[in-house]
Amino acid sequence: MDASVTLLDQLIAEGLLIRTGVEGLYGRSGVFEDVIVRFEALVSRVGGADGAEVIRFPPAMTRRQLETSGYMKSFPQLAGTVHSFCGGDHDHMDLLATLDEGGDWTQKQEATDIALTPAACYPLYPMVAAQGPLPPGGRLFDVQSYCFRHEPSADPARMQLFRMREYVRAGTAEEVQAFRQRWIERAEEMIASLDLPYEVVPANDPFFGRAGRMMKVNQREQGLKLEMVIPVANAQPTACLSFNYHQDHFAHTWGVRLADGGPAHTSCVGFGLERIALALFRHHGLDPAAWPDNVRRVLWG
Amino acid sequence: MDASVTLLDQLIAEGLLIRTGVEGLYGRSGVFEDVIVRFEALVSRVGGADGAEVIRFPPAMTRRQLETSGYMKSFPQLAGTVHSFCGGDHDHMDLLATLDEGGDWTQKQEATDIALTPAACYPLYPMVAAQGPLPPGGRLFDVQSYCFRHEPSADPARMQLFRMREYVRAGTAEEVQAFRQRWIERAEEMIASLDLPYEVVPANDPFFGRAGRMMKVNQREQGLKLEMVIPVANAQPTACLSFNYHQDHFAHTWGVRLADGGPAHTSCVGFGLERIALALFRHHGLDPAAWPDNVRRVLWG
Repeated sequence: MDASVTLLDQLIAEGLLIRTGVEGLYGRSGVFEDVIVRFEALVSRVGGADGAEVIRFPPAMTRRQLETSGYMKSFPQLAGTVHSFCGGDHDHMDLLATLDEGGDWTQKQEATDIALTPAACYPLYPMVAAQGPLPPGGRLFDVQSYCFRHEPSADPARMQLFRMREYVRAGTAEEVQAFRQRWIERAEEMIASLDLPYEVVPANDPFFGRAGRMMKVNQREQGLKLEMVIPVANAQPTACLSFNYHQDHFAHTWGVRLADGGPAHTSCVGFGLERIALALFRHHGLDPAAWPDNVRRVLWG
Repeated sequence: MDASVTLLDQLIAEGLLIRTGVEGLYGRSGVFEDVIVRFEALVSRVGGADGAEVIRFPPAMTRRQLETSGYMKSFPQLAGTVHSFCGGDHDHMDLLATLDEGGDWTQKQEATDIALTPAACYPLYPMVAAQGPLPPGGRLFDVQSYCFRHEPSADPARMQLFRMREYVRAGTAEEVQAFRQRWIERAEEMIASLDLPYEVVPANDPFFGRAGRMMKVNQREQGLKLEMVIPVANAQPTACLSFNYHQDHFAHTWGVRLADGGPAHTSCVGFGLERIALALFRHHGLDPAAWPDNVRRVLWG
């Protein structure tokens, strides 16, 4: 039996996750949520002294921003746009008739101005650019949101809707690279304190199609993406954190500028909150009350 | 000038909300979020002794469940379904060409199995039904999620994406009516302790179109929906909490059953978290540190 199915089955049987009928879309129990709350509190303690600006976006962004971001070019298969019905009484009767007949009633809807957020930091960059040049020393942000990626899977570590916590740094190349290096070290210490086995490895984003192959190679060769992988539910360990250096990509996409008008560089560290919770359940058991004392102390104090 | 625009402008100027370019879709500052966290903690203190089962769903449900719920019949204009691109390399080139030309590239997407959650309790009822008959005494749940309603508006109290916290009771008619009455009294005490003016009034849901008119009248006449309204950003006060008695509607829709096999009744109390935060900012000012001592004590202890 597939190991990922086994862990998922255990989580379902224990009531930690709740099936909805769609792969990758699960309810969470209070116990599961509490692990995420506690892990986020740990992240906040570790990152707290840096004085990040806390910003929270809903789990959606404007479709216009998704378009401008280039996401449809690189990851069209993962994006989700929101469609709604905009007709009158007569159109509504048509829609209901189509629904009753088992037809595709969503054809009667139109695309709204809204798309689901693919990564917590996506709505941040246009906001930063709109607020004008960075002050000397740059800016640092703390973001978190539910994210959507259309990749139905029986692997509990590959959900269609999951939460990502991120710190995002904008500044000079030196500033953002130092930020990334500091967070790699912090993350190693943090994950080690939770008694989880890990490795930090070069990685690439899942760029789409034939044209995407070169993007993957380039991203790896330039060391722009590192992931912290932890065994979760598969033979291969799962990326639970990522450390990304975007160079001046968002300066060109959005106009994020340094105080002197030059292009800003950006970097982010992302925590895959459900994946980290799953790793804890996988390695320490399904009952957090029975987790090792040292792990419990780190999370529950 | 429209009063709702004025409050929104103030919130934007203060950095509490952040414009995205789409009406009803805003970023939130850390200060705004903290008010919501603190208000939710108050709700948990008031409701905590009841021992509700905590369940958290992502901000989406299965499209199938949305269809079965009857939402497309009653509120088609508010629903959002998620569409994704499912093609190959060649289709992708088509999509990008359409995007470049400013055409409707979303026509190249297909409806996924996922729809946005219109109210936090929607994914709960099929889960409860699937778990079998209620135990004697019924069940009580604590849910919260971001919800989507497609109703773009300049009124900050009418967001397209907002959070709803709910307690949901399933049991006999007597049990769920007693639950609703208890929460009306608790809510009055809670909102009074925050020095907010309020009134509890009969209300109806925004049923769609001509056919919906009778539904609205019936709902009001039977007293199935009560709202706690608080002045926020308009001449008319805004519904910030609602107290809903569904009778045995979800028994018929989903098969929620009592221990004896009879149809269960359900009721929910919903807290519109952004609206309550906005009410606090409207009545006590944009700086929570300067709110009245008694209000601060209730929220920050």
